[in-house]
Formats: sequence, C-alpha cells, structure tokens
Amino acid sequence: MSQDAYSEGDLRNTGMALRHDREWDYELERIIDEIEERDATKVGLQFPEGLKRRGPAVADDLRELCDDDVTFLLSGQPCYGACDLDTYLMRRTDVFVHFGHSPMKESDKIIYVPLFSNVDPFPIMEESLEELDDPEENPDVGLVTTAQHMNLFEDMCEWLEERGFEVHTRRGDDRLTHEGQVLGCNYASADIDADQVLYVGGGKFHPLGLAMEHPDKNVVIADPVNNVVTIADTEKFLKQRYGAVHRAMDADKWGVIFCTKIGQGRWEKAQEIVENNENAYLITMDEVTPDRLRNFNMDAFVNTGCPRITTDDGPRFHKPMLTPGEYEIAVGNEPLENLEFDTFHGTW
Amino acid sequence: MSQDAYSEGDLRNTGMALRHDREWDYELERIIDEIEERDATKVGLQFPEGLKRRGPAVADDLRELCDDDVTFLLSGQPCYGACDLDTYLMRRTDVFVHFGHSPMKESDKIIYVPLFSNVDPFPIMEESLEELDDPEENPDVGLVTTAQHMNLFEDMCEWLEERGFEVHTRRGDDRLTHEGQVLGCNYASADIDADQVLYVGGGKFHPLGLAMEHPDKNVVIADPVNNVVTIADTEKFLKQRYGAVHRAMDADKWGVIFCTKIGQGRWEKAQEIVENNENAYLITMDEVTPDRLRNFNMDAFVNTGCPRITTDDGPRFHKPMLTPGEYEIAVGNEPLENLEFDTFHGTW
Repeated sequence: MSQDAYSEGDLRNTGMALRHDREWDYELERIIDEIEERDATKVGLQFPEGLKRRGPAVADDLRELCDDDVTFLLSGQPCYGACDLDTYLMRRTDVFVHFGHSPMKESDKIIYVPLFSNVDPFPIMEESLEELDDPEENPDVGLVTTAQHMNLFEDMCEWLEERGFEVHTRRGDDRLTHEGQVLGCNYASADIDADQVLYVGGGKFHPLGLAMEHPDKNVVIADPVNNVVTIADTEKFLKQRYGAVHRAMDADKWGVIFCTKIGQGRWEKAQEIVENNENAYLITMDEVTPDRLRNFNMDAFVNTGCPRITTDDGPRFHKPMLTPGEYEIAVGNEPLENLEFDTFHGTW
Repeated sequence: MSQDAYSEGDLRNTGMALRHDREWDYELERIIDEIEERDATKVGLQFPEGLKRRGPAVADDLRELCDDDVTFLLSGQPCYGACDLDTYLMRRTDVFVHFGHSPMKESDKIIYVPLFSNVDPFPIMEESLEELDDPEENPDVGLVTTAQHMNLFEDMCEWLEERGFEVHTRRGDDRLTHEGQVLGCNYASADIDADQVLYVGGGKFHPLGLAMEHPDKNVVIADPVNNVVTIADTEKFLKQRYGAVHRAMDADKWGVIFCTKIGQGRWEKAQEIVENNENAYLITMDEVTPDRLRNFNMDAFVNTGCPRITTDDGPRFHKPMLTPGEYEIAVGNEPLENLEFDTFHGTW
C-alpha cells in the first residue's frame, strides 16, 4: 500500500491536500458554553493529523470568546481515530475537545465535535450508479460511510430509494456510533442482506477492509473528496499480506505488540500468544513505529493494536509485521486460506 | 551536532556499537526476590534504547527463575533517561524494573537496576593527566561522571588524590542521585571550587553541557568507552544555537511545547510564555519528534521539555526549535550574550 505511487482516491490525498476546499463547523459556541458552565481554566483541544494545522486558529477564536484566565492546550500526540484519545490531556484539563471523530464511547469528560464534510456526495453517487446493479433487477444495496459524511446518511438513503433501490443499513456494534458507519477496523455495519455495498467516502483503506471483510459482496466506492468511482480490489492487498506471512514463517523470535492506547488494547490476545510460544515476547507501547521496533532484536512482530498500522504501514518496518490472525497462519496453527482482515470490536 | 559525521567520542557510538564488549549485571536475584515477595504476576521491564535488544534475553532468564504464571512485559517506549519512565507500564505491573539509569526520585513502585559499565576507566584517566594542570602547580580538580561509571567514583577520586590532586566533588541537587553525577540536563555537581573538571564517561553531549554551564572551567573529557581524551569545545555548539536563534527571530507563530513525560514538565515556564505572547500556542506531547511538529503550522518552536532534543536533535526539525532561554533572546527580551545551556532542576 504505502509503497505505491499516489493515485486517484488515495488515502494520502485526503485531509492535507484536498481538491475541494472544506469549511468545518468547529461548534465554538458549544465549547464556550461548556467552558463557562464548568468554570474551566484549562481546555484541551485534540485534532486529527490532517487538521492539526487548523488548531491554532481555532484556539485563537476560542480565546476571543473566553475570559483571559482560560489556557488552551493543543494535543501534539498523533491522532488518526477516536481510539487515539489523548488521555493525558483529557485527565489534566477541565474541558477536553476531540475533533473529527465520532465517540467510540461517550464520556462526560469529552466533547466530540464531528467536523462533517461539506462536500456534496450526490454527483459522485450519480456516477456510481453505473457500477451498481440495475435496481429493477437487483434493488438490494448496502450503504456505508465514514464519520465525516454521517450528517448526510439519511439523505443518501433517500436518494438511493428514490432511484428504486432497497437500502440496507445497520449500526453494527458498540464500537460504531452511527447507523451505516464504518471504521478502518470495523465493518459490522455492512453485515446486511445484499450482495452489493455502496461506500461513500474518501480513502482506499476503508473500502479495502470492507471488501476483505465481505468478500461475497461487490463493494462500489463513491469518493466525493477525490471525485472518483472505483471497485474495491483486494488482490494487491492479499498479495502483500501473503508475502508478509511467508517472510515471517522462518521467524524464531517474535515481538508481540500490546498497544497501550485506550481503544487499541487486546490484552487477552497478546497474552495468549506469548503463553503458547516460548520465543514470543510482549512489548508494550502507544505509538507503533519502525524506530521503536528496530532496537528489539526480533525476527518478526505480531501487532495486536491497530490493524491499519500492520497492513498499511507494514512495509515501512524492518521486519515482517502480522495481525494476530496472520500470526496463527505463520506459525502453522491455521491454514493460509484462513487469512482475514483484522478487525476490532467493542470499546474500552 | 547531528549533522556532523561520526567522530571519536561521538554520543552515537555508545551503546549500540561499542569498541569494548560489556557485560552487565542485571541483578536478576533482586528482581526475583521482589516478584516473590509481592506475589507478582505482571512484571514490566524498561531498558534504555541502546540496551533494548538485551531485553528478551533478560526476560528469558527471569522466566526460567519464576513461576509460569508470571508475565513479563518489555517497554517499547523510547527511553534515554530516568525522566523517560514508562508510567503506563509502571502503573499496570506488580513489579516494574527500570534498567540503566539512577533514580531521579525513589519510589516503592520502581526497582532501579543501574547497569554499571565494566570498562576500566584508569588507563584513559592516565592519558587525561596530560591535559590537566600539573598538581604541583594547581592541585584543584573537579571530578564528575555518569550513572554507568558511578560504581568506580570513589576509586577515581582516590586515584587522582594518589597523584597529588585535591579532588572537589559535590552531589549537586535533588535531580542527581549520586555525588559527582551529571545528567544531560543537570551539571550542578560541577559547581565546585576548581578551574578544571575531569569528566569520565562516553558521549559528547554531557561534557558539552558541562563546558557550557561552566564556561570558566577547563573541561577535560576522559572517555573510557571510545578510549579518547579531548577538551570540551563549545564553539560549534554556540554557533549552531546562535543560528537557530537568528532564524527564529522573524517567527510570528510560536509553538510552545509542554512535554508530558514525568521528569520533563515545566508548566510554569510554558504558561508564562503563552501568557506573554498572543502568537504563542501551547502544544502538549510526550515524544517530541519532527513528524509530530510538522502538522502544526508554526514558524518556530520553544521546547520546555528535554534540552537534548532541542540542541542535539534540533537540526532534524523543519522549523527552528529553541530552549526557553533562547526564546527570550529571539523575541528581544534578553540580549544575545545571555545565551546559556538549558538545564533542569528538581524531580517531579
């Protein structure tokens, strides 16, 4: 994935380099109300990576609206999802605002500001009709999207229904806040009774996970950010993963990564692996980066944390890194054909 | 610093690529005693970067000596000093062992295993005599070293006294565990009544800080790891720092980094800066890395955390990064000649 040249619909083209300008609603008034209600003097603001550069301006606007004794702190911790909650900053501020992701778990301590995209998805949905079955022949279609387009989900459903489709949606499980929402690590909302699913959103990772999780379904991608319609193709992904599994098969020493981020811990899984392999060592960390693993003299790694790190960033690591399921294949406990996309369920 | 080619006595030659083999005493019996006494089932092990590759073998040895129900967890968090304590792992384990650094603050929760070097310092001290004044003319000499040579400190003192020197030592302040110890951020142990100081230890950063903090003293470096004697020279360092200050003078927007590591927080300093500069923004993080700062659209940064990051890693950042003292110069509150080495005092 990460080795490929940039292409249309590429995950890396979103956020920092958009074709369409976006204006976000930072819900300043809601934040100010909370600050006043709680007599807050310390306010933490956490933005996803692609929006961190907007943080100072948001802090400026909030300062203007506040008493002088309020100090704003911008989180500098990496943030790619609601599981990347900056718990240090959260615990040490009177009001803590997490921008751009929907709540993985509600908490009085956290104000979630969703930052819905203002890109119009309907022109690209119009184009996507060419890739969906004719509703007269097969009206059943699943519909999923990401948090930033959630505000238009009902409209998207209606739009499809007006064109003769029977739209199947579900909320999925606890980890998902909204009906029809997908995360990079959870596609339970696509467990619907239709053999085609329309994914409306940017990036390649989400629809890829979707296609891996639902190999029996045709996954049509309507990307309103990069203005392109494609069909999810798992072949390259599978090839990369088979390659990683094969390279790890000769490994003697395994580093088993337990991620300490609040939404990414799978302790039982990590412990199960080390209990059954005397050459496996538990390594704990928050950010899983190539630099941090280089100093451990291991032959391969199993990452029980975020699957996007394993599969999307995998090639950047000096040794093969596998998901827990892939590990079972590499050590011979499971056959190669059982290779699956790694997903997370539940919250914390 | 980091831009230079590797050279004799280079900080980066220590730890991972030593000329002398080392064998460390991991004090396994002391650890096992604690595990048994506390009926521990979870044991955390934290090694400095250069020794992380030894972690799995130490875990193996401990496993052999323990009941099967004890799980060992290796910290994967970056670790360069006692201020890099992995507090997450510490709080979630029954026994937590921090290897290779002396206690910045004693705690029942932490077993500190010092890992003293077994390199013989006396041959290189013999060579260093050529750079020290003749004791018949000027017998006063200060003696300082790092945690890993602390076990021989008394012997070093005696060795110098036998050669006619009057050895001046002191403990410095709270942040230092031992008489004569220096940290990269604290040289209070060299506040002694002598115009020459002998530093016994590896690396370039410590003696550089020493020479910056004590510009009136001749700092002689006896490096027993790389087997070289040199005189600390602050000229290149000062040039680099003046360069960074000058480049930051035009900055409009300042990112003020508050480091959330337990031993690196200077909240009052950080808050003072943002209170007096409306174009300064507080950014909180644990690891201060170029990647994390790139997404903030700032013209310059002030790092209130570890001064080694600012000065040693500074050139790796995309925008100038200053110490708090250098910031005061860049914004015109202090004259250029007040440039000093940034130090830390106290614990947490």
